[in-house]
Amino acid sequence: MNMDKVADLPSGPLDIYRQKTSFNWKEMLCFIEGEETLAFKQHVFKTLENDPLFARTPGEDVPVEKMRELNFLRVKQLFRYDFMTTEESMSDPLRTVVLNDCLGMYDWSMAAKFFLNKGMFGANIANTGSARHIKYVENINDMKIFGCFALTELSHGSNTRAMRTTATYDPSTQEFVINSPDFEAAKFWVGNLGKTATHALVFAQLYTPDHVCHGLHSFIVPVRDPKTLLALPGVMVGDMGKKLGQNGLDNGFALFHNVRIPRENLLNKTGDVTPDGRYVTPFKDPNKRFGASLGALSGGRISITRMALTNLKLALTVAIRYSATRRQFGPKDTEEIPVLEYQLQQWRLIPYLAAAYALEHFSKTIFMNFVEFQIGQIMKDKSDRQAEMGREIHALGCSSKPLGSWTAQRGIQECREACGGHGYLAMNRLGDLRNDNDPNCTYEGDNNVLLQQTSNYLLSWLHAKHHDGVRIESPLHTVDFLDDMHKILGSKFTATTMEQCMDSAVSMAAYKWLVCFLLEESHNRLKQQRALGKDEFEARNNSQVYYCRSLAMAYIEHNCLQRFYELTTAQDTPAGLRPVLSKLCALYGLWSLSNHMATLYQGGYMSGRKPAEMFQMSILSLCSQMKDDAVALVDVFAPTDFILNSPIGNADGQLYKNLWSTVMQGNQIRNIKTESTSKCNL
Amino acid sequence: MNMDKVADLPSGPLDIYRQKTSFNWKEMLCFIEGEETLAFKQHVFKTLENDPLFARTPGEDVPVEKMRELNFLRVKQLFRYDFMTTEESMSDPLRTVVLNDCLGMYDWSMAAKFFLNKGMFGANIANTGSARHIKYVENINDMKIFGCFALTELSHGSNTRAMRTTATYDPSTQEFVINSPDFEAAKFWVGNLGKTATHALVFAQLYTPDHVCHGLHSFIVPVRDPKTLLALPGVMVGDMGKKLGQNGLDNGFALFHNVRIPRENLLNKTGDVTPDGRYVTPFKDPNKRFGASLGALSGGRISITRMALTNLKLALTVAIRYSATRRQFGPKDTEEIPVLEYQLQQWRLIPYLAAAYALEHFSKTIFMNFVEFQIGQIMKDKSDRQAEMGREIHALGCSSKPLGSWTAQRGIQECREACGGHGYLAMNRLGDLRNDNDPNCTYEGDNNVLLQQTSNYLLSWLHAKHHDGVRIESPLHTVDFLDDMHKILGSKFTATTMEQCMDSAVSMAAYKWLVCFLLEESHNRLKQQRALGKDEFEARNNSQVYYCRSLAMAYIEHNCLQRFYELTTAQDTPAGLRPVLSKLCALYGLWSLSNHMATLYQGGYMSGRKPAEMFQMSILSLCSQMKDDAVALVDVFAPTDFILNSPIGNADGQLYKNLWSTVMQGNQIRNIKTESTSKCNL
Repeated sequence: MNMDKVADLPSGPLDIYRQKTSFNWKEMLCFIEGEETLAFKQHVFKTLENDPLFARTPGEDVPVEKMRELNFLRVKQLFRYDFMTTEESMSDPLRTVVLNDCLGMYDWSMAAKFFLNKGMFGANIANTGSARHIKYVENINDMKIFGCFALTELSHGSNTRAMRTTATYDPSTQEFVINSPDFEAAKFWVGNLGKTATHALVFAQLYTPDHVCHGLHSFIVPVRDPKTLLALPGVMVGDMGKKLGQNGLDNGFALFHNVRIPRENLLNKTGDVTPDGRYVTPFKDPNKRFGASLGALSGGRISITRMALTNLKLALTVAIRYSATRRQFGPKDTEEIPVLEYQLQQWRLIPYLAAAYALEHFSKTIFMNFVEFQIGQIMKDKSDRQAEMGREIHALGCSSKPLGSWTAQRGIQECREACGGHGYLAMNRLGDLRNDNDPNCTYEGDNNVLLQQTSNYLLSWLHAKHHDGVRIESPLHTVDFLDDMHKILGSKFTATTMEQCMDSAVSMAAYKWLVCFLLEESHNRLKQQRALGKDEFEARNNSQVYYCRSLAMAYIEHNCLQRFYELTTAQDTPAGLRPVLSKLCALYGLWSLSNHMATLYQGGYMSGRKPAEMFQMSILSLCSQMKDDAVALVDVFAPTDFILNSPIGNADGQLYKNLWSTVMQGNQIRNIKTESTSKCNL
Repeated sequence: MNMDKVADLPSGPLDIYRQKTSFNWKEMLCFIEGEETLAFKQHVFKTLENDPLFARTPGEDVPVEKMRELNFLRVKQLFRYDFMTTEESMSDPLRTVVLNDCLGMYDWSMAAKFFLNKGMFGANIANTGSARHIKYVENINDMKIFGCFALTELSHGSNTRAMRTTATYDPSTQEFVINSPDFEAAKFWVGNLGKTATHALVFAQLYTPDHVCHGLHSFIVPVRDPKTLLALPGVMVGDMGKKLGQNGLDNGFALFHNVRIPRENLLNKTGDVTPDGRYVTPFKDPNKRFGASLGALSGGRISITRMALTNLKLALTVAIRYSATRRQFGPKDTEEIPVLEYQLQQWRLIPYLAAAYALEHFSKTIFMNFVEFQIGQIMKDKSDRQAEMGREIHALGCSSKPLGSWTAQRGIQECREACGGHGYLAMNRLGDLRNDNDPNCTYEGDNNVLLQQTSNYLLSWLHAKHHDGVRIESPLHTVDFLDDMHKILGSKFTATTMEQCMDSAVSMAAYKWLVCFLLEESHNRLKQQRALGKDEFEARNNSQVYYCRSLAMAYIEHNCLQRFYELTTAQDTPAGLRPVLSKLCALYGLWSLSNHMATLYQGGYMSGRKPAEMFQMSILSLCSQMKDDAVALVDVFAPTDFILNSPIGNADGQLYKNLWSTVMQGNQIRNIKTESTSKCNL
């Protein structure tokens, strides 16, 4: 593609570093994004920047109520802009990811409110309902109604099966009666429900007139009058109040007091009730039906991985540009050097930069894996491969979210600290990034709880091999190497020079050994727990720490590294970019592995002083080799200054000028707004 | 003391755990606090609770401007309450720590604003000024003036020597002219300066009429009219805007345009200017003078350690009580168990509980070490021991702050995640705790930068031993074991059972080896860097990661563990408390050490699979052994519910009732406050 279309960045103090880069940042940008995506992103960014409704000042202090109102108005505007038609999202699924990136870079509350309405409500109705529900999807797009997804309750989150809201069918009126038995069963945490949702997709236990419970089903329940936004009779609905972040999103609660809805409001793809009150379902096993109705959540976890990455990119943009322009101390008192020149600062930030590049490719490719799986579902592919891919995608999603969200959480915190006091000013946005990223660790399943799903998947493969002699081989090949487990466990660390360590093949081999080792150890731990007479519930619980949990993390880190490695060696990766990509890949591998160094020693894969020392020296060497590339590497993923909204992270690198003028502007605004200081005298 | 004076906690769902504790929580409370302190704390807590000015609702959304105003009014009220006279603080120095704990538990902005005025401004004037400055201290206490401490500038924080504000003496009027050369030299981040300070203690480069610069000195500069709080002529002063936390504190900036102040406003303990313009100082070496004038900062770092601990205690109170009452999943679908019963949840939280107990004793004892040192200073003790103690206290302060603030930062984050979505609600306070704790990592010196001071101290001992053959022995004995370095480095890990591992002596021995190993490695690394031709600046910089930085952390962790171990074995530690204290100590040691496991293997202190496995199993076993004590352990350090201000952390354990009623109250308040929703329709 034509690199000339990429605009130059403004000249300034960052030029020193930009002139020293080992690669062409525009080439990298075009390689990662592609021409169409770049144009689309610029279009979205410019549209927001040019619309006064999206105006904002860095660090402004907006009351929560105002944030929620403003966010609602902005989301409505997004529906008007209609950046992407349903057809476009079908023909280019990655486009939805890019749009979510763009909106989230501006504000995650806005992206969330938009996608909860359109995706969680709209798309779920389309996927789990039938022809009779199409009107709701149309009404969403026409902004006649506003939706939300109401699953969790006050006293239950992770344990979705324990939800206690009921939907009892009354054949005399052909209605379902939706009821909350008590406040502990109030729907809770429902995004959009606090202020603006007119309709909720409510998960409730379905009871037929014979008092039989058929398990959790979803229903469309009107909750507010679309004209006045006042609650409908029998619905007690409200806002949960201030959260640590994402305060533009109105998370809410709802209690239902025998609210009657038409029979047709049951989303009936996986089960229906006939007018006279009989339950009918294409699924024989209720567990399978339940699984299918919650299946949509895998996509959510994969997009959260990407959302977390987006936060990490923004934080790194701020911290690296700051570090390249902030000077402190130096070899002489009169000559200070940028803090990016310090080994310590490099080591704090550059590995996260490598992680961001690794996660960039990882999050895109697992999304495409998910799209492949979804197409199979739509095509009603009943093959074993499709079923297997479902299990594998589930295992990937359940571990990619922890990997992405924790990497971002730690990375943003490191960026905050690396920017010192200035990183603590709200205007520089690192606080918002940390606060907005935080729930990525929690929603769609607590990270630690989700990791159990992944380790269960891996253990089930081992079990199948031991008991049924099957070959370990999965549709996406993420577990294939486990078939060689015996051989891999016999391997040892053999690199003898730093140069060898800096070849990602060394890290990949170490990761393969690590996953095999942890798999075997987890398996043994479970066996031992069972031998002690523990039931399955307890045996699993007692095998998480140091075993199953570490296993799941090692599996997903290995997969992320492997995908990145494949990119660096792929034929269409431009020759000019390969050296820097290979370094990033090597650094990511070594740095991630260093969290497992004790296990590598413990299991005998490494011994003696040298291996750990070589790892450490290789990490420091790679950080140092890439310090001059760091600014260009963030230029590649940085949005426009308006979107980034962080004076110390501006593309012109005029650190103090930008910071000072923002402080001055804020002071003027506050002085105008504040009443007299008469209350505040001594 | 009389345990009967301790009130019982309300009965409720937490009783199940409270009845299972292995120790008497009231006995622990009395042992840790003592009767007088307990009564003092209750007095402070009750006074605040009974005063409507301190009323608040959990999770309320207060605009930044309002927070600053409210905080100012509250601080003035604290001066009226005068909880502690100067005499009381002299006779019982720990009392100031307790008061700071109490105020900080309520709100760190309030504690900070109070102590910046009274301590950083008032006490610094008292310590570095002379008789002519006493009036300022009196005016502070009479609330006639309000002070701040103005050291850092926009473009300089850590590098204090590079400050560029000037104070030029004009003998014709016997005044100093205070001037900021440009906006990059604006005083920045000054707490209290944003809105309310009338006087600033300004650090500036002192110039005599002969154009000689005598380095950084401090001056009392009036900045605002005490009646109107309007800026004085020549002073451009304002608020920096919103921060990530501590928003009740008005951090500000100031630019001085040739502001004239009387000659007497120079704080002249370490240097003075005669009326005719000659510089006189009792110090011959300007570096020593500079060091003495900044010496007061050591006390700041030690109190930050304690502040961070206080945050950790609050977060743990919330998370442990939540985990003991939140039920999710269970062996059967119908029977859910408290999440505290899960190994994973125990492992996430209980080690931080052990850390809190370790840091409790640590932060108190290093404070008392500092008091001993301060008394020596006041008594003008010129002995070698006093000078040595100064260096040791500096090394302790520079590493205790990183240990405390990072442990709290990570611990609060873990607590937030361990409380799931409910931990993300602002009303439960984990966000405020995280945000308010965050600057502890940064102010009074960036953690990573400070750690270099500690490693320099340790390296200087090794150097003295090698070159001058001195015995390594320090006033507080924190380094004495290094004298046996050679022998310690020859030792190996010898424990063969979990029981042995659970004796803290094993962890202490491992830590001693670790510190010696890292000291030797750091020394070798520096030698190697010098041999490569690097100058001292570069050699030091290139020896931080994996060497000096790890060394400083291992040193302070060892010291923290050692002090705790001494407490568990001390004669006056009640027999009934020893078992649980010993377990906490053992857990803290093993858990802290597990971050260094790779190094223990790398250096050959451990080998084979067993040691790491025993460590891990010991940690899990200790967590499990203490799960029934966890609630009582937080009851010991929990403040009253009013002070804790977190519905899910209330002492009655009525998790859902408290959460639900706070949500309902918030909703009512918001519904009253909000204008009509007319703007928000579809």
